[in-house]
Amino acid sequence: MEPEEFRRAAHELVDWIADFRLRVGDLPVRSRVSPGEVVAALAAEAPESPEPFAAFMSDLDDVVVPGLTHVQHPGHFAWFPSNASLASVLGDIAASGLGALGLSWQSAPALTEVEQVVCDWARRLCGLSDAWRGTISDGASTATLVALLVAREKATGGSQRAGGLQAEDRPLTVYCSEEAHSSVAKAVLLAGYGAANLRLVPQRYPDRGMGPDALDTMMAADVAEGRRPAAVVATSGTTATTAFDPLSDVVQVAHRHGAYVHVDAAMAGAAMMLPEYRHLFEGVEEADSLCWNPHKWVGSVLETSLLYTRRPEDLVNVFATDPSYLRSATDGSVVQYRDWGLPLGRRFRALRLWALLRLDGAEAVRARLRRDLANARWLAEAVRAAPGWEVVAPVPLQTVCVRHVPPGLSGAELDAHTLAWCEAVNSSGKGHLTAATLDGTWMVRVSIGAEATEQVHVDAIWAEMRRQAAAHV
Amino acid sequence: MEPEEFRRAAHELVDWIADFRLRVGDLPVRSRVSPGEVVAALAAEAPESPEPFAAFMSDLDDVVVPGLTHVQHPGHFAWFPSNASLASVLGDIAASGLGALGLSWQSAPALTEVEQVVCDWARRLCGLSDAWRGTISDGASTATLVALLVAREKATGGSQRAGGLQAEDRPLTVYCSEEAHSSVAKAVLLAGYGAANLRLVPQRYPDRGMGPDALDTMMAADVAEGRRPAAVVATSGTTATTAFDPLSDVVQVAHRHGAYVHVDAAMAGAAMMLPEYRHLFEGVEEADSLCWNPHKWVGSVLETSLLYTRRPEDLVNVFATDPSYLRSATDGSVVQYRDWGLPLGRRFRALRLWALLRLDGAEAVRARLRRDLANARWLAEAVRAAPGWEVVAPVPLQTVCVRHVPPGLSGAELDAHTLAWCEAVNSSGKGHLTAATLDGTWMVRVSIGAEATEQVHVDAIWAEMRRQAAAHV
Repeated sequence: MEPEEFRRAAHELVDWIADFRLRVGDLPVRSRVSPGEVVAALAAEAPESPEPFAAFMSDLDDVVVPGLTHVQHPGHFAWFPSNASLASVLGDIAASGLGALGLSWQSAPALTEVEQVVCDWARRLCGLSDAWRGTISDGASTATLVALLVAREKATGGSQRAGGLQAEDRPLTVYCSEEAHSSVAKAVLLAGYGAANLRLVPQRYPDRGMGPDALDTMMAADVAEGRRPAAVVATSGTTATTAFDPLSDVVQVAHRHGAYVHVDAAMAGAAMMLPEYRHLFEGVEEADSLCWNPHKWVGSVLETSLLYTRRPEDLVNVFATDPSYLRSATDGSVVQYRDWGLPLGRRFRALRLWALLRLDGAEAVRARLRRDLANARWLAEAVRAAPGWEVVAPVPLQTVCVRHVPPGLSGAELDAHTLAWCEAVNSSGKGHLTAATLDGTWMVRVSIGAEATEQVHVDAIWAEMRRQAAAHV
Repeated sequence: MEPEEFRRAAHELVDWIADFRLRVGDLPVRSRVSPGEVVAALAAEAPESPEPFAAFMSDLDDVVVPGLTHVQHPGHFAWFPSNASLASVLGDIAASGLGALGLSWQSAPALTEVEQVVCDWARRLCGLSDAWRGTISDGASTATLVALLVAREKATGGSQRAGGLQAEDRPLTVYCSEEAHSSVAKAVLLAGYGAANLRLVPQRYPDRGMGPDALDTMMAADVAEGRRPAAVVATSGTTATTAFDPLSDVVQVAHRHGAYVHVDAAMAGAAMMLPEYRHLFEGVEEADSLCWNPHKWVGSVLETSLLYTRRPEDLVNVFATDPSYLRSATDGSVVQYRDWGLPLGRRFRALRLWALLRLDGAEAVRARLRRDLANARWLAEAVRAAPGWEVVAPVPLQTVCVRHVPPGLSGAELDAHTLAWCEAVNSSGKGHLTAATLDGTWMVRVSIGAEATEQVHVDAIWAEMRRQAAAHV
């Protein structure tokens, strides 16, 4: 496609995007398509000749938009927020158009250095000391895997450069909260530790944190039985309830046993931008690495996950390669992000967050987070005050976990009721909630924080929840 | 940022992108900034208040563009092509604007199903049978790691669900060409096999392929010594010279020893779109998985890497998770791409390739590949005919590996000469080449295939090469 044809089409497309954002609140939040419906609507083979741009746009309208669950919708309260803020979209458009290739510093110096700058901007906004160095990965799953690979190699003195994990006699163990994200167990498995060497620490600390005494006991038992604690993944803001592990105590216990500490703050890390919330992260400075995702609450387009370390050399020791075709005169004096993680080539990821922070400004982001936190407090109070309703977990952040308990209902019947009214809300198209289990019982998460969500939308979803719960008794 | 403000800014930005693509050929190909120059040009802290869009655009012009090595430039002959074709940019803009979140099928059915469709389109265009199922990962490094994790788990009967790799007695081995990409060794290390268990097979087969007899001998020796061959990574198109391992023979040998076969065709896989080049991939249908990157030669925006498998259940067995908060009524009847690889959440990756194939059409892509292949043949003939010049490796594809050998020069002196004239070309700004080692001696790769590169540009770089080589004798 020639630039002039692109120009015409792109003008049409960006108008369509602006219009889409203006009308997204009128669409059903959860997609109503059936499995296979999108596939059936599309050609089975790529066209030989160019199709008109109008055909592409028609399919966006007729197939793609109805085929999406709209997380930019003000009624999106499912999972966690996934804001693709329009300022960030501009940065992403610039990245696509520039078509830069991050293979090495030399292949795109600005791609590397803007990533350094924007990681540093985010660090300062979070009140983290200048001991931390950051990089952008695609998501927290990758960051956790990276951290557990680093921990594995530190615990073994570099097994990968020798006989691999099999050559190590003493089993390595990893610890996390029983409510840690599924990606932690996945990373433990992928990094080769084995499910048998993952320890789930009970959430018995105040506010459902991982108990440091329980952690200490488990680590000591493993050491006594000849195993070697390699890593603790502490969670700041669990997925189900946004519970916080007590970082100070956890880090102290972990380091006493020689284990690496990675902090998974995928969702909650954004709250470090608010000084009044930093107490939840007390002790983070003593951790070894830290991940949080600006592509969730803060509004950067996916895939923008920040991974910080206090020792980049830990990453380089594990991830560096040095093929002849990537050597250049500047090696040694620059950062080579390919040596900090899994991928070799990367797109210009930093522009997404850079544009967001520049075009919206930090204060507007903080104001939005505070708006959402106030809305969550409001909802939690409303739920607590409503007969038959319970807030089933502390609400340290913007996610309110609730249950509606009709008189006399418990066990499997209560679970069925919970799933029924949640599904009814989701089917209504007016809002989207996530059901999740907590201590073996289903509850419903109302995760506030879509960029478009104002107090009126929280009010509306709460009304819909009460309506549907009453209708499904 | 409100939609109307986005609309105004985005119109300006897409005009800027069209203009950038029109003028990129007038810029120096390789960036001339010094380490730290971009960092020094930018603020140390994020702004508190919104900056004007004009300030963002000024920095794109004044800091970012001069800070990039321009792989969209017609003089880009370094590494491999990295075409961000403008039709694909449109798809990427749509993805950013929609802000869809791929966590599960339910979270974005169209994101999942368009990915299925476009993987199938690319499969058919490549003449692969319908036994293959595809997914999009960020790059070939990830795909290779995924394949080697699958191979590890198949070889151990699922060590990760039990005691991990340490609980396995028989060492696992992996085999690849001595010229395999650096990401293969990296993936071997990360997957826990250990460097000591990686076997580099000499390139002694015709045209620098991995010799199947040598492979067989190495595998048999490992088996005899109590090790277990887990995987062979066959390369279709090595990075240095685009050499092809003989897939039929390699797969036969590998499977006889019970090893998994992954085909790394990151660059060259695009050539499967041309029926007259498919003989280079003979035997691919018997492999277990296959990766190639439409984000290289074909023109999809980064990060668009295709990973095909003939047994998706292999991936699901290794990568699946099932947290309560991601369950939905459609589970079991749909594809959950989070269970096919490393990440949980993904952006709408498929739109980049979908838009490219629809808006340019398959025939235009094939015509472009054929243009580049013809240009490479032309250059190879020109180099062979020039006194003092050598083509140092076969040219099966679009990369021509050359050396200029002044009379009497050899060894370290020849290496110094090679690096000097290559650097002089790169400093000129007119073109960008990559120096690489082959059999321990430096040579220069001219990798043809930037979308903007016509025969006149190949002619020009060849003239510049001769001029600089003569000037540096």
